[in-house]
Amino acid sequence: MATGLKFGLIGSGFMGRAHAIALHGVAPTFGADYAVECTVLADQPLDRAQKAADSLRFQRASGDWRDLVADPSIDVIDICTPNYLHAEMALAAVEAGKHVYCEKPLALDIKQSIAVTEAAQRAGVCNAVGFNYICNPMMQVAREMILAGEIGEVVNFRGSYLEDYMGDPRVPFSWRCERRFAGAGALADLGSHLINMAHFLLGPIGRVCGVTRTVHKQRQQPDGIVRTVENEDVAQALVEFNSGVPGTMEISRIATGYKCGLAVQIQGSRGTLVFDQERMNELKLYRTDDTSGRRGFRTILAGPEHPDYAAFCPASGHGLGINDLKVIEVRNLIRAIRTRTNASPDFAEGLRVQKVMTAIELAAQQGGWIVPERITAS
Amino acid sequence: MATGLKFGLIGSGFMGRAHAIALHGVAPTFGADYAVECTVLADQPLDRAQKAADSLRFQRASGDWRDLVADPSIDVIDICTPNYLHAEMALAAVEAGKHVYCEKPLALDIKQSIAVTEAAQRAGVCNAVGFNYICNPMMQVAREMILAGEIGEVVNFRGSYLEDYMGDPRVPFSWRCERRFAGAGALADLGSHLINMAHFLLGPIGRVCGVTRTVHKQRQQPDGIVRTVENEDVAQALVEFNSGVPGTMEISRIATGYKCGLAVQIQGSRGTLVFDQERMNELKLYRTDDTSGRRGFRTILAGPEHPDYAAFCPASGHGLGINDLKVIEVRNLIRAIRTRTNASPDFAEGLRVQKVMTAIELAAQQGGWIVPERITAS
Amino acid sequence: MATGLKFGLIGSGFMGRAHAIALHGVAPTFGADYAVECTVLADQPLDRAQKAADSLRFQRASGDWRDLVADPSIDVIDICTPNYLHAEMALAAVEAGKHVYCEKPLALDIKQSIAVTEAAQRAGVCNAVGFNYICNPMMQVAREMILAGEIGEVVNFRGSYLEDYMGDPRVPFSWRCERRFAGAGALADLGSHLINMAHFLLGPIGRVCGVTRTVHKQRQQPDGIVRTVENEDVAQALVEFNSGVPGTMEISRIATGYKCGLAVQIQGSRGTLVFDQERMNELKLYRTDDTSGRRGFRTILAGPEHPDYAAFCPASGHGLGINDLKVIEVRNLIRAIRTRTNASPDFAEGLRVQKVMTAIELAAQQGGWIVPERITAS
Amino acid sequence: MATGLKFGLIGSGFMGRAHAIALHGVAPTFGADYAVECTVLADQPLDRAQKAADSLRFQRASGDWRDLVADPSIDVIDICTPNYLHAEMALAAVEAGKHVYCEKPLALDIKQSIAVTEAAQRAGVCNAVGFNYICNPMMQVAREMILAGEIGEVVNFRGSYLEDYMGDPRVPFSWRCERRFAGAGALADLGSHLINMAHFLLGPIGRVCGVTRTVHKQRQQPDGIVRTVENEDVAQALVEFNSGVPGTMEISRIATGYKCGLAVQIQGSRGTLVFDQERMNELKLYRTDDTSGRRGFRTILAGPEHPDYAAFCPASGHGLGINDLKVIEVRNLIRAIRTRTNASPDFAEGLRVQKVMTAIELAAQQGGWIVPERITAS
Repeated sequence: MATGLKFGLIGSGFMGRAHAIALHGVAPTFGADYAVECTVLADQPLDRAQKAADSLRFQRASGDWRDLVADPSIDVIDICTPNYLHAEMALAAVEAGKHVYCEKPLALDIKQSIAVTEAAQRAGVCNAVGFNYICNPMMQVAREMILAGEIGEVVNFRGSYLEDYMGDPRVPFSWRCERRFAGAGALADLGSHLINMAHFLLGPIGRVCGVTRTVHKQRQQPDGIVRTVENEDVAQALVEFNSGVPGTMEISRIATGYKCGLAVQIQGSRGTLVFDQERMNELKLYRTDDTSGRRGFRTILAGPEHPDYAAFCPASGHGLGINDLKVIEVRNLIRAIRTRTNASPDFAEGLRVQKVMTAIELAAQQGGWIVPERITAS
Repeated sequence: MATGLKFGLIGSGFMGRAHAIALHGVAPTFGADYAVECTVLADQPLDRAQKAADSLRFQRASGDWRDLVADPSIDVIDICTPNYLHAEMALAAVEAGKHVYCEKPLALDIKQSIAVTEAAQRAGVCNAVGFNYICNPMMQVAREMILAGEIGEVVNFRGSYLEDYMGDPRVPFSWRCERRFAGAGALADLGSHLINMAHFLLGPIGRVCGVTRTVHKQRQQPDGIVRTVENEDVAQALVEFNSGVPGTMEISRIATGYKCGLAVQIQGSRGTLVFDQERMNELKLYRTDDTSGRRGFRTILAGPEHPDYAAFCPASGHGLGINDLKVIEVRNLIRAIRTRTNASPDFAEGLRVQKVMTAIELAAQQGGWIVPERITAS
Repeated sequence: MATGLKFGLIGSGFMGRAHAIALHGVAPTFGADYAVECTVLADQPLDRAQKAADSLRFQRASGDWRDLVADPSIDVIDICTPNYLHAEMALAAVEAGKHVYCEKPLALDIKQSIAVTEAAQRAGVCNAVGFNYICNPMMQVAREMILAGEIGEVVNFRGSYLEDYMGDPRVPFSWRCERRFAGAGALADLGSHLINMAHFLLGPIGRVCGVTRTVHKQRQQPDGIVRTVENEDVAQALVEFNSGVPGTMEISRIATGYKCGLAVQIQGSRGTLVFDQERMNELKLYRTDDTSGRRGFRTILAGPEHPDYAAFCPASGHGLGINDLKVIEVRNLIRAIRTRTNASPDFAEGLRVQKVMTAIELAAQQGGWIVPERITAS
Repeated sequence: MATGLKFGLIGSGFMGRAHAIALHGVAPTFGADYAVECTVLADQPLDRAQKAADSLRFQRASGDWRDLVADPSIDVIDICTPNYLHAEMALAAVEAGKHVYCEKPLALDIKQSIAVTEAAQRAGVCNAVGFNYICNPMMQVAREMILAGEIGEVVNFRGSYLEDYMGDPRVPFSWRCERRFAGAGALADLGSHLINMAHFLLGPIGRVCGVTRTVHKQRQQPDGIVRTVENEDVAQALVEFNSGVPGTMEISRIATGYKCGLAVQIQGSRGTLVFDQERMNELKLYRTDDTSGRRGFRTILAGPEHPDYAAFCPASGHGLGINDLKVIEVRNLIRAIRTRTNASPDFAEGLRVQKVMTAIELAAQQGGWIVPERITAS
C-alpha cells in the first residue's frame, strides 16, 4: 500500500468523525495519489482518544494535542476541536511547520484571524479552512456557469442560511451562547458558510449594512440557572459585492422548520441559478435562451458531468451526501500540498469571512454601511 | 333578476377586463346578494369603449369618464386606468359621493395619496384599493393561523416579489420607466402588493432601511431614442414591524425566471408558514408540535375548509386562479357597501403602503432607518 | 349589447354553478363574438330554480327541464344534473334539435352512450361533453409538443387520477355507490377524465388489461343502514394505444392525501412531459437536446405564450383556476356551433371513453386483454 | 487498532469501489465493533488488481478470485463482478465456508438462484445481497410507520423505477443487452431493487400480471455491427401482495429524464407515504389525523430521529448519499455475522425477487396472472 501524508487529528466529536471518514475515503474515491495515513488522534482524556482511535481507525492515540504538533512524523494537523481552541492550535501548528486543516471558524474574532493567517503565510505551510459546502459538485458547476457567462451579467444575489437548532426557547444555554467560546452566534456558525459561498460564486463583498437580533435573550442552563445569551440568533444584511452586484443575506438559528437551509439565488440578465443545501444534489437553472413557451427553471440533478461527482458514482441522480463533500475537501487539501499551491479556501479566506461577519455586526450597532476590507484588529 | 349596485368602470385594458369578469362572476359565485349591474364602461375613444362594453357585457359605453362620475344612477366608480390617472379620478368620484374601487397603486406619491384618502374619509364613501393577492383563501387562512398563535410567537418575516418583465435590457422604454406616469418602479408595481401583504399578515411596518437600484439605466424607445430610466428595477429592505418583528423585503422587476414570485415566509417560535403566489393554491406549514421524526413542511392544498374557497368549488385541490381573487375582492367591496363598513384594504391602507415605499426610497438615498409613519406630503 | 346563443341550463348544483360562471365569463374573456344569453335555468322544485336563477343571473327559471327542450327560443341545452339523468335529457334535447352541452359522464353505460351519440349525429346538432381538464393551456401545449415531435417518438404513458373523497371508510353510502345512479365508481367519476386526457394526447387506446377493487365493501347510510357498495374504489390498468405506445393507468377515489391528482407522464425518445392537475399551471419538460450537464426537468409556468392563457391574463405565472377551464370549454362549444363544426370532445368521444371504462371492467372480470373498440351494447 | 473480519473483494469496478469505500467507512461511522480488514482484492489481470488495491487500500492483490475462496484467512467474500459471474463465485465461496456478500442480482435466473440459496443454507454461512436502497433511514422509518399502523390499513402500492441510461436509441449494444451476461433487462437491473423494496415494506408479492417491451429492438455495437437486444427496456405489472394489497409496478431503462427514479407510494386508510430516491433524504407523509384545513403532505427531512442517520451526522437535513447506504448495508452484514443471525436481505430474498421477475416475464408471455411462489427451476 502506498504511503501518504500523515495526519494528526485533534478532536473526535462530530467533526472529528466526519474528517476521519473523509480521510479514509479519499483514496478509494479519488485514487492512490490521495492516500493518507491516519496516524495520531488526540483528544482528552487519553482513554477517550484511544477509544476514538479504535473506531476511527487511527494508528495511535494521544491525550495531548501538543504531542502531535511536536511530532516530526506528522505532516498535517487537522483541527476539529471546539471553536475557541482553533486559533491557538492553528498558530502552534503553523509555527511548527505543519500544514493545517482547520474546521471553520478559523478563529473567534478579527485579531485572532489575522494572527493565524499571517503566521501561516510566514511559515509557508499549506492552510485550509473547512468550508465544505462549496465543494459540492453543484456549487462548483454553478461557479463555472457564472464565470462562463451562462446566466449573462449577474444582477443580484440572495443568500440565506436558516436552521432551527435554537428555535425552541427551551433549548438550553450552552457554549454556543457565549462570546468567549463561540464568538458570534448565527453569524459565525451559519453565516460564515454563506459568506464563503457568496465569495466563491461572486467574489469579495465590498460593503454591508445589517441588523442582528437575539430573539430569545435568556436561556436556562441544564442546572436551572438562567443566563443571558451573548450572541445573535438572527442576522440580516444588505450587501454589495466589489463587482457592484447587490444582494441580501439572511441568517438564523431560530428559523423553525429549516434544518440546513443554506440557499442561494444568483440572478443574471440571461438566467438565474437557485441552490438549496437541503436538496444538495439539485441545481435549478433558468435560461432566457430557451425557446419562448418552453422556458422554466430546470432542476439539474448532480451527475458525472459535474465536477468530482464521477469519483463517487458513475450514474446521475444517485445522490451525494454531506460527508462526501468532506472527501472532496480533503482531496483539495492534499492536492494543494502535493502541488505546493494554496489551498482554497485558505486561512486568508477565513479572515475575509470574519471581516464580513464583523462588518455586519458593526453595521447593526452603528447603522449605515460598513466596508469589511477596512476592518482591522483594533 | 335582483337589481344590484350599479358599476361604472373606467378603463378596458387588462385590469378593466379582469374587473369586468369579476363583476359578472360575483353573484354566480357568492349568491344573489352580491349581484351588480354592469352599467357603463368608459374609455377613450368612444368606439373603443363601445367595443369593450360589448365584449365585457356593459349596458352602455362612454368616451368620457367624467360622465360616469356625474351620472346619478351610478353607485360605484371602478378605476382601471393607467396609474397616473388614479388619483384624479378617485378624487372626482369621492367628491361626487360615489363609492370608489381603485386599482393599485392608489396614487403616484404621498401627496396625492393623502389628498385622495382624506377626501374619501370626508365624503364618507366606501373606498377600496385592488390589492387582490391578500384575498387568496391561503392568505386568509395564513392570517388566521398567525392570529390564533398556531405558529407561536412570530420571530421573523421574509418577503419578496420577483418578476422579470423588464429583465431583458432590450425591453423598451415605456411609461413604466417614467416618474410622472408610474411613480416608483418595482416598488410601486410589485412592492406595493408585498407591503400590503406584510401589513395584512403582521400589522404595520415601523421602520425600514434599504437600497434601490436601476440596473438597466437606459432603455430604447420603440422609435429608437435611448432614454434614461427614472425609477428603480430593484429594491431591497430590512424592515421592522411595529410589533418588533424583524424582516426583509426584496423586490425586483428584473429577476430572471420569476413570473409572479410574490413569496412570504413567516417564522414563528412554534411553526413557520411559507407561501408563493406562483403556487397560489398551496400554503406550506411546519409545526414543532408534530411528533419528533414526523415533522416537516406540509403542503396544504386550498380547499373548502379555507375561507371563500367553497364558493368556487366544493372539492379541495382543484385550483383557484388569479381572476378568482378579484371575485373575492369585489365581494368584499359589495359587502362593505351593504353593511356601511370600511372596505379592506381601503385608501388608508393604500396610503400606508405608499409611505413604506417612500420610506424605502428615502432610506436608500440617506442611508439609515426611516419611519414610514412620520413621512408627510412635503 | 350583442345578442348571443341562448342557453337553457338544467341543474344548479356544483356543476350548474360552474357552468353559469363560465357562461357569464366567456364574452368578457374571449370577446363579444362569444357572448351568450343566460336564458332559462331549470331545477326542481321551481323555487329552488328561481333562487338559482337569481344568483346565477339567468333571465327565467323553470321547474321542469322539458320546458327548456320544448322552448323554441333556446339554442343550447346545458346538462348539469346528476349522472343518471344525462342520457335521457341529452336524448330529448338532440331530438328537439338543440345543441347539447352535457357534463361528463355522457351516460351510465355503453348502451345509453351509443343511443345518445347516434341520436346526436342523426340530428346534426353540436354536441359536447364536459371533459374540462384538457382545456388547460398546459394540456393544449403538451399536445402540440407531442405532435410536433418535441419529445421524439413517444415510448410510454403513465396516467393516474387519484382522489380521496371516499378514502375514509366512514364516508357514508350515497348515490355514488349505486350502479343505477352512478354507473361505475372511480372509473366513471375520475377515470373518464384520465382516459379522455390520454386520448387527447396520444390518440385512441387499443387494448387494456386491468383490475378493479372495492376496498371498502360496505358503507353506512346517514340513516344507519349498512349497504353494499356496488362499484369500484380503485381501478388499475395496463393499456396499449393504437399507436403501439404502452402505458399504465391508476384510478382511485380512496388515495389518501390526493385531492385532484390527475397526473400524466409522457416519455419520449428525446424528452418527457409531466403534468399534475394539483399544479395545473405547470408543465414539466425534459429535453435530451439540452447541453450535457445542463439537462433537467424544467417547470414551465403557464403564460400568454400558451394557448388561450392570454385571454385571462397578459402575464405569465399568475395562475388560472379550474373554473377558467370551463370558460375555455364554453368558448370551444360556441366556436363549434358558430362554425358548424364538431365540438371536441363530443359525444363520440364520450362513447369512446365509456368503451375503455367498460373494457377495463371486463378485463378485471375475465383476466387478459380487452379491445375497447369491439365492445357493443349487448 | 482492533482487528476485524477479513474481507476479500472480487471486482474493482464501480461497485467494487463503492464497497471498498463502505468497508473503510463502517468503523468510523458505526464504531470499532464494526471494524473490518480490507485484506485481499481480486481482479483480472493482476496489475489491475494491484492498482485497485493501492487506491482502495487493500493489503494484498490477487489476479485470481479462487485464491480468495481458498484463503483460510479470509472471512467474507465480497462479490462485485459482472452479473453473470455472481452465482458461480457465490457458490464456490459458500462451499468453502465463507460468508458471502454478493451484489445484486444474486444470479441470472431461477435455477442459479435456487442453487446458490440452497448451498448457502446448507453451509450455514451468512449470506447477503446488495439491495442497498432499503438501508436508507427514510425507508427504514417508512417500514416502521407502516408496521405501527401510522397510515392505517394499507390499501394500495405504487412503485416505479425509472432510469434513462438506454433511452437514447444510439446507446450501443453491450453486455446489458444479452441474456447470457445480464439475464433480464430493466427488470433485473432496476426491477429487482423495486421488488425488494416492495417486499421490505409490504411483505411478499402473491401474484403478478404484466407486460415487457423492448422498445429499441436493435442497437449497434461500437464496432458497427447491429445486434438484436435480447431483453426488455420496459416492464409494467399489476401486482397483489399476499396481504391482499393491490399495486402497480413500472420499470424502465428508457424513461427519458429519470436518473434514479426509484419511487414508491403506499396509500393507507389513514395516511399515505411517498418516497423518491432522487430525493433520498425526504419522505412525504400525509395523515388524516391532522386537523381539518391543516392537512397536507409533509416533507420529512432525514435526521437523527430516524434509524442510522445519527451515525453519519448529528443534524437533520444535512443529507446522506448513496454511498452511505452501502455503509449501513455493510454494518448490517457484520452485525449478522457477529450475532450469527441471517443477513437481511439474504440470498433467499434474492431468490424471491428473482421469482417475481420471472413471474412478470411469464405473465407478459402468457397473459393473465402468475404466482411467483409456484415458479420452479424447470
